Amino acid sequence: MRATVLTDIPNPDKSFEYSAQVKEYNAPEAKSHEAVVKIQAAAMNHRDVWILKGQYFGIKTDSVLGSDAVGQVVSSGDNAQVGKRVLLCPSVNWDSDPRGPEGEFSILGLLPSPGTFAESINIDSKSVFPCPEHLSTEEAAALPLAGLTAYRAVFTKAQVQKGDHILITGIGGGVALFALQFAVAAGANVYISSSSADKINKAVELGAKGGINYKDPNAMEQLDKLLNGAKLSAIVDGAGGALFNEYLKVLRQGGYIVQYGQTASPSVSFRMNEVAQNLELRGSTMGSRAEFKQMVEFVDKHKIHPVVSKVFHGLNQQNVDDAIDLLRTSNQFGKVVIEI
Amino acid sequence: MRATVLTDIPNPDKSFEYSAQVKEYNAPEAKSHEAVVKIQAAAMNHRDVWILKGQYFGIKTDSVLGSDAVGQVVSSGDNAQVGKRVLLCPSVNWDSDPRGPEGEFSILGLLPSPGTFAESINIDSKSVFPCPEHLSTEEAAALPLAGLTAYRAVFTKAQVQKGDHILITGIGGGVALFALQFAVAAGANVYISSSSADKINKAVELGAKGGINYKDPNAMEQLDKLLNGAKLSAIVDGAGGALFNEYLKVLRQGGYIVQYGQTASPSVSFRMNEVAQNLELRGSTMGSRAEFKQMVEFVDKHKIHPVVSKVFHGLNQQNVDDAIDLLRTSNQFGKVVIEI
Repeated sequence: MRATVLTDIPNPDKSFEYSAQVKEYNAPEAKSHEAVVKIQAAAMNHRDVWILKGQYFGIKTDSVLGSDAVGQVVSSGDNAQVGKRVLLCPSVNWDSDPRGPEGEFSILGLLPSPGTFAESINIDSKSVFPCPEHLSTEEAAALPLAGLTAYRAVFTKAQVQKGDHILITGIGGGVALFALQFAVAAGANVYISSSSADKINKAVELGAKGGINYKDPNAMEQLDKLLNGAKLSAIVDGAGGALFNEYLKVLRQGGYIVQYGQTASPSVSFRMNEVAQNLELRGSTMGSRAEFKQMVEFVDKHKIHPVVSKVFHGLNQQNVDDAIDLLRTSNQFGKVVIEI
Repeated sequence: MRATVLTDIPNPDKSFEYSAQVKEYNAPEAKSHEAVVKIQAAAMNHRDVWILKGQYFGIKTDSVLGSDAVGQVVSSGDNAQVGKRVLLCPSVNWDSDPRGPEGEFSILGLLPSPGTFAESINIDSKSVFPCPEHLSTEEAAALPLAGLTAYRAVFTKAQVQKGDHILITGIGGGVALFALQFAVAAGANVYISSSSADKINKAVELGAKGGINYKDPNAMEQLDKLLNGAKLSAIVDGAGGALFNEYLKVLRQGGYIVQYGQTASPSVSFRMNEVAQNLELRGSTMGSRAEFKQMVEFVDKHKIHPVVSKVFHGLNQQNVDDAIDLLRTSNQFGKVVIEI
């Protein structure tokens, strides 16, 4: 089969090189507990770019890249779901512990786990879930990794409930957008931040109560005005940027700051003021198979449509290169998908 | 009545001054929802020293100092508990929300709330709880504030359970000692840190599995050896010192770092590594009336004896000055108590 293979360990100190090659690849034979899934479409994540830049732990050559996919079950050891359209849970060896993986954790798209930018994948039958019918192929491909990360951050970690006031920072990225859609569907009052007026407007169309531009010197006054005396019960953040400690001033006693990434700073600080307010800073990464199942059911129940910004048609070198370039050089609102 | 009154707002930039005066004080008349409690003994907390150094929020002159007390109910609006020996919950306007205070929070020992270094106190009848019979007067006085802070940190925030492996840093302080005693009583495997071999030995007598000297360059190797392959499920910390981020390396996926103070650093840092491990940094301050009730019942059930290092007999200027000096200049193992 054809697959997108990492041919070299990228050097993070060098300028960007194209070490993702679309080529013939000998997939191992499926084991008895595995399903073989013919991939219909896959989506890009920033994780793929970090791997290609050499900025990721445990990079291994000959990995097939890609963590997200929708596809059709060709065969499985237990003959379940054959012919069905399915979504693949990107978390490997994490069954249901809400605290973290029970086993040696990995994610689809880096060895020892297979990847999704390929014509087909062998995957544990337990990691294959029916795809909600209301999703198009492109929307379905966009859901798994970012949807799972957002679901765990919003519900398991931030404990978002109907009527809560929530801030989601850096809207536009895949996780932040799903966090917005999920929290809105749960009945929360969601506020967002962005450096783009256009993205703020699009987020309001998706159900946000309002947004602030974090580059505006009056950003905190804008947030105070939007909140109108209410306090945030949680902040869902993937950046940890300049306003991080400012946001905490409008967080309620005992509120949660959930971080799923730190793209804007190498660390965040937690001070005596936060201790005295009983605040909690909760790291959140990916999610379990149990959370993935709940997430897919939530998307089905609320008929949520993932935001797709660009679709490439066909698994070839040009499309893979263009998709990577798009993700690493520009600032998307929604997911980038490759139809296989 | 006589009481220990803050006569001046201390200047944190000046050398230490004695602005705590034992003098006649006109207590306000008790309101219908209040009990009048004759105080038998009170205990010191570092909070009292911080107030006297001017290093605390919202310091007000004419405050009666002191947050801890055991006493006898003289009268109460509903005539309940009259004549009984009781403990006073130091948290004001925090009933039962596990996240934080429902109302305008204050603590006994600083206006608008009364203090316990006095012959008597008027206090909300709901904040008065029967004192366990196994406690001496001195032990009872030592329990409230540090016991409540430790109980919330260990159970509400760190969720300590039987068989868990727990690290408690800076053993010797009131909160750390209660945290040790509570976690041991709950069946956890408790490890401690200190800069004193003597304190480590005393902690082991109280049930710790072992301790490390955080000034020893091999401290982390010692901890690895003690853990023998096990991972910590929580760290209870009041300091945030040099080893803070080192300790996180032996914390399990999704483990909790509970901070009730930051005496050794102005802040702690939370990095991408912590995010990726699903770790949670949980601030914890004091506790609710509901947590106080549970704490007193836990102490009663497990017949825990608070560690008292020094008792002064009599509420007079010399004893108050000596007690303050002891707390601000030396390093106690256990609580300092004044019998009134």
